[in-house]
Amino acid sequence: MNQYINEVNECLMDYLHTLKPGKVREAMIYSVSAGGKRLRPLLFIQGLRSYSVDYRPYLKIACAIEMVHTYSLIHDDLPAMDDDDLRRGIPTCHKQFDEATAVLAGDALLNEAMNIILTMDLDDSLKVKICQLLFKASGASGMIYGQQQDMYYENHNASINELKDIHHHKTGCMIAVCLECAGMIACPTDIDKLSKLGFDMGLAFQIQDDILDVTSSTEVLGKPVGSDIDNNKTTYVSLLGLEKAQDYLKDLYEECLQDIYALSINHGLLIDMLNKIIKRVS
Amino acid sequence: MNQYINEVNECLMDYLHTLKPGKVREAMIYSVSAGGKRLRPLLFIQGLRSYSVDYRPYLKIACAIEMVHTYSLIHDDLPAMDDDDLRRGIPTCHKQFDEATAVLAGDALLNEAMNIILTMDLDDSLKVKICQLLFKASGASGMIYGQQQDMYYENHNASINELKDIHHHKTGCMIAVCLECAGMIACPTDIDKLSKLGFDMGLAFQIQDDILDVTSSTEVLGKPVGSDIDNNKTTYVSLLGLEKAQDYLKDLYEECLQDIYALSINHGLLIDMLNKIIKRVS
Repeated sequence: MNQYINEVNECLMDYLHTLKPGKVREAMIYSVSAGGKRLRPLLFIQGLRSYSVDYRPYLKIACAIEMVHTYSLIHDDLPAMDDDDLRRGIPTCHKQFDEATAVLAGDALLNEAMNIILTMDLDDSLKVKICQLLFKASGASGMIYGQQQDMYYENHNASINELKDIHHHKTGCMIAVCLECAGMIACPTDIDKLSKLGFDMGLAFQIQDDILDVTSSTEVLGKPVGSDIDNNKTTYVSLLGLEKAQDYLKDLYEECLQDIYALSINHGLLIDMLNKIIKRVS
Repeated sequence: MNQYINEVNECLMDYLHTLKPGKVREAMIYSVSAGGKRLRPLLFIQGLRSYSVDYRPYLKIACAIEMVHTYSLIHDDLPAMDDDDLRRGIPTCHKQFDEATAVLAGDALLNEAMNIILTMDLDDSLKVKICQLLFKASGASGMIYGQQQDMYYENHNASINELKDIHHHKTGCMIAVCLECAGMIACPTDIDKLSKLGFDMGLAFQIQDDILDVTSSTEVLGKPVGSDIDNNKTTYVSLLGLEKAQDYLKDLYEECLQDIYALSINHGLLIDMLNKIIKRVS
């Protein structure tokens, strides 16, 4: 899948270099280039390809998704939020630059995610539909709500359902929207099914995250291992224990497979993506 | 103009209450309700009215403009940026809530500014055009670039042209876009003229800001007076002296009048707005 990652990266850099130069653009480029797995843009691209739709006219949507994701990481890492010094093994944006620049680089990536879609050579009605999906997912009732709930439950005990609700919004919305956008382009009548698959994948992604936090190493993970325990954070592992969390992940894997087989598509491409999520080591 | 302010406020509250509840929504509502003059939404509304266009179908655009403006104030006030405790005479968002919530409330206001336009009952092509104008003005080559340059020149001496460039982007873009959006709806062929008027008004606004910082009182201004001098900031007053800055403002007033009379509109409404900007005391 490296070919698609390269195309997304190239499209991202082309766009970012059209912006006015300076420290904020440098910081945007730094964070966008900081070795992400491009899971979300790939999911969007493989979603389109599984319907035999050419992804190339839609590359800027993949870029917009990655820009929203990167903005959320930059702001999450700020001292006022998670206060993380490392991300993907290198200094976080505010460590490499400064806090003010990191705030502005995050703001700018969210703002330019809108602009990159608005400048596409697409029908206006499709632009509006894609923006409606994407910015509902990232907005105050989506990802930002999840972030708020995550912060709230740092000082409160979360039940398993409350934990699911946090991650449904914080992680799930932005993973589901990749498949929803692909569906909007390729087969709008499948959007609900694709959305369910996306949220199931998002949950699986989060559980794997929690498992890696106790089973991986700082070197492999690119960020401190055991940070959830150190921060006294409620996770699927802390609530269920490692073994049951692993069982839950297996069940979710089966559920995702069923979701995929419920669609009339090239199943292999999305199964590859599912494996990428579940079997990742960092 | 209180009638229009009330309608904008009502529309803003209606929209914000559709979002998922919690601390972030509270902070958004707090900052949006914190006694702003609604200069930008009013400029948009009076722009439409000066072409005899009914503003009511477009109220949500006025709200979106105010949401973008409020987000920028919340993030500007953060400890990492201007570190302001007071705004419009009451605690800034991060003082009233906390820094993390202020970061998220700002993010959410920018994101929801997009969403409120996307949910409007308008032609998709007009939605796209309005979003293109608004989010170009607020983006990495617009307001955010101005913010970056403003920060840079905190530690460097700015010439008069560099100062103009900062404020063209930092203040001008978001004031000009109010008239540009009105033009896009009412008379697209006038957009360039409206844009020039908007940037001239924006510059006048900024010079008046700098003058008020040395001639007003903390009580009237709702924020500490003399803060520019304390922060060793380059302003029109520090570069030109008070008297010449006041002369420059008078010249700009004449320039704006000429801009207004160059348009075939009801001139009185925009002259009222110009007076509101130039003759304001806070």
